[in-house]
Amino acid sequence: MEVKAAIAYEAGKPLSIETVQLEGPKAGEVMVEIKASGVCHTDAYTLSGRDPEGLFPAILGHEGAGVVVEVGKEVTSLKKGDRVIPLYTPECRQCEYCLSFKTNLCQAIRATQGKGLMPDGTSRFSIGGQKLHHYMGTSTFANYTVLPEIALAKIREDAPFDKVCYIGCGVTTGIGAVIYTAKVEPGANVVVFGLGGIGLNVIQGARMVGANKIIGVDINTKKRSLAEKFGMTHFVNPNEVEGDLVKYLVDLTDGGADYSFECIGNVKVMRQALECCHKGWGQSIIIGVAGAGEEISTRPFQLVTGRVWKGSAFGGARGRTDVPKIVDWYMEGKINIDDLITHVMPIEKINDAFDLMHQGDSIRSVVTFN
Amino acid sequence: MEVKAAIAYEAGKPLSIETVQLEGPKAGEVMVEIKASGVCHTDAYTLSGRDPEGLFPAILGHEGAGVVVEVGKEVTSLKKGDRVIPLYTPECRQCEYCLSFKTNLCQAIRATQGKGLMPDGTSRFSIGGQKLHHYMGTSTFANYTVLPEIALAKIREDAPFDKVCYIGCGVTTGIGAVIYTAKVEPGANVVVFGLGGIGLNVIQGARMVGANKIIGVDINTKKRSLAEKFGMTHFVNPNEVEGDLVKYLVDLTDGGADYSFECIGNVKVMRQALECCHKGWGQSIIIGVAGAGEEISTRPFQLVTGRVWKGSAFGGARGRTDVPKIVDWYMEGKINIDDLITHVMPIEKINDAFDLMHQGDSIRSVVTFN
Repeated sequence: MEVKAAIAYEAGKPLSIETVQLEGPKAGEVMVEIKASGVCHTDAYTLSGRDPEGLFPAILGHEGAGVVVEVGKEVTSLKKGDRVIPLYTPECRQCEYCLSFKTNLCQAIRATQGKGLMPDGTSRFSIGGQKLHHYMGTSTFANYTVLPEIALAKIREDAPFDKVCYIGCGVTTGIGAVIYTAKVEPGANVVVFGLGGIGLNVIQGARMVGANKIIGVDINTKKRSLAEKFGMTHFVNPNEVEGDLVKYLVDLTDGGADYSFECIGNVKVMRQALECCHKGWGQSIIIGVAGAGEEISTRPFQLVTGRVWKGSAFGGARGRTDVPKIVDWYMEGKINIDDLITHVMPIEKINDAFDLMHQGDSIRSVVTFN
Repeated sequence: MEVKAAIAYEAGKPLSIETVQLEGPKAGEVMVEIKASGVCHTDAYTLSGRDPEGLFPAILGHEGAGVVVEVGKEVTSLKKGDRVIPLYTPECRQCEYCLSFKTNLCQAIRATQGKGLMPDGTSRFSIGGQKLHHYMGTSTFANYTVLPEIALAKIREDAPFDKVCYIGCGVTTGIGAVIYTAKVEPGANVVVFGLGGIGLNVIQGARMVGANKIIGVDINTKKRSLAEKFGMTHFVNPNEVEGDLVKYLVDLTDGGADYSFECIGNVKVMRQALECCHKGWGQSIIIGVAGAGEEISTRPFQLVTGRVWKGSAFGGARGRTDVPKIVDWYMEGKINIDDLITHVMPIEKINDAFDLMHQGDSIRSVVTFN
C-alpha cells in the first residue's frame, strides 16, 4: 500500500516527505497506523551521520503511538483497533534476556533490527523498487508502519496519541531509570545532570517515588523554572559554583547523592556524577549517549568504597509490561507530559522539528499525521 | 604492661621485635591477647612506604585472632575469656552507614583510626615514652593489643586461632565479595582474575553458593592445581590465549560472566574484568587495590548495555554479624582455610613472612605468639 513517510536518503540532509510502498504484515507482524511521533535526539544523531550503525536510506522515527490496522498470521496479543506504542526495545518474554528477570534488553530480534530489517531479513518499505531501511525496528516517521508483535505495547483507549507517543522513548528512559534501573526509594537524595527532556523526566520520576532532595545541574539557568515545576528542589549551575563541583554537591547532599543520573552524554560529567555519590552506597546511572570511542574514567577507590556505576537503556523498562503502566500514570496525573511537548506540527514540517532541537528551542517536538 | 610487638619504625625497613608498653583498655575498649596473626599484602604495602596514609612508627597487623583478657568500662558485649577476631572495619550498629543496611563501611571511628589512634585520640602503645601508632585499628603484630568493643567479632570457642585469624581479612574479603557484595546465585558463571589468596577465597565462595563455571585467570600456571582444589572449573592463562582475552572469556561463558572479580589491583585487568561480563546484567567487582592515582576506564556503552561496575571492601561483610558465621562455615567444613596457610612461624620470624610474600612463595603466612 502507499503510505506517507519522511525518508532519510543520506546523512546530513533534510528528510524528504514522499509516498512509499509498505508491504502488509507477515506472520508475527502487525501493521500500525501511526498517529503521532516524537522527534528525538537519537533520530538526529543517526541523521547527522555520526551514528556508526546508521543505515541509509531509511525511515527514521522511534517514538510513536498509533492504532493497529492489520495483524499477520500467528499474532495473538493484538487485534485491529488496539492502541499501541512501538517499542525499539521489544519484549519477547522467551529469550535468555527476558527470562533472566535482570534486564530489559530483549535480544529476540536484535540482529535484524540492527541491520534495518524485519526479523525475516527483509524490509517492508520501498520506493520505486528501492529498499528503504527500517530504523530501530519502529520507523515511526510514516503514517503506517509494520512491526513485530513483540515490539508493540498495548495501551488504553483513551490516551491521546500526541502526548503518549513520548512514552515510546524519552519519558520511559527518564522515569524508568529512576524506578527500574536505580530503584530510588522514598527519602533518597538525587542529583540529575542535564535538564533536557530526559533530565526532566528523571526529576519527575524522582518526585513520584518520594525522593528528598532533587538537585538539577545545568549550565543553562533558563532551565530552572520548568525543572522546578517538575519537582527539582535545588538548582546548581556549575559555572556559578566556586571551587570543585563534586565537593559542592557532596556537601549539598549531606555526604553525597544516593543516586545520580547523567542525562547529557558527556564523559567528564559522567565522572562527576559518579564521584558526587555517597560513600558506601551511592549509585550513578549513565543515561546519556557519549560520542563514539569516548571513555569514562575514575579511580577504582571510588568503587571499592561502595559507589556503583551502572547504565540504563530505555529506562530498564520492559516495553510490553511497563509502558502501559506509564501511560496509566500519565492519564492519572501522576506524571506530566503536556509541558514537555513544546511543539506539535504535521509530518510535512518535520525538518523544522530537527531545527528547533539543534537550536535548543524545544524540549520535545511531536509530528502528527492526518 | 609490657608486651612483645613487631615495630615498624620506618618505611622500607624490617620490623623490629621489641618489648613495648601497652596501656589498659579505656571505656568502650577491650584488651585482647593475640594468639595468631596473618601477614597480608596490605601490611607489606604500608611497610613499603607506598601507602600514602601510612604512619610510622607503628605496630602493623590486621588479621588476628585471640582472647579477651580485660574489658574497659561500658563494654557490654564481651567478657574476659571470649574468643575474638579484630575488625579493621568495625560495626557500631548506630551510625548512618550501619543503619543504611546498604554498606559495611561503619564510620564510627574512621577519623581516629585513619590517624593511627584510638577513638579518644590517643595511642595505647609506646616505647621509651615515644608514642607508637595503631594500625588499621587493630595492630595484631603484638601479643596483646587494645581495640574498641565495636571492632571485635566474638567467635566460637573451638576455633583454632592459627587458622581463623585469616578470616580477619583475606577469607572474608574473598568469600564476602561473592556472597555479600555480588550476591552470586546458584548456576551463575564466574570469572576470577588473580589466583592469590583473595582469588582462591573468591573461588571457594563461588563454589559454596553453587556457581556453574568458575573460571580462574592467572599468568602463573603453577596456581592451577590449588585453584582447582578450591573449586575452579576452568583455568585461563592470558599468555596462552590467542587473540583477545575478553572475547575468549565471553565465549567461554556463553555470552559473558554473570559476575567477575578483580583480585590483583591492576587497572587494565579491572577493565577486562568489566568487559568480559554478560550484556544486560553482568557485574564486575573490584577487590584488588590499585596503585595510588591509577585510574580505570571503559566506554560508557559497556554500562548502558547493562554491565555494573562496583567494588568490595572487607567483602561487604559486617564484621560482628558476618565474621562469626564465616568461622562457623570453616568449622563445618564448608570452606577450606588450612590449605591456604602455607607457613606458620613465631612472631620473631615475621620478616621471613614478608620475604616469602615478596618472593611469591606463600599464600598466607601466619605468625604466632607464645
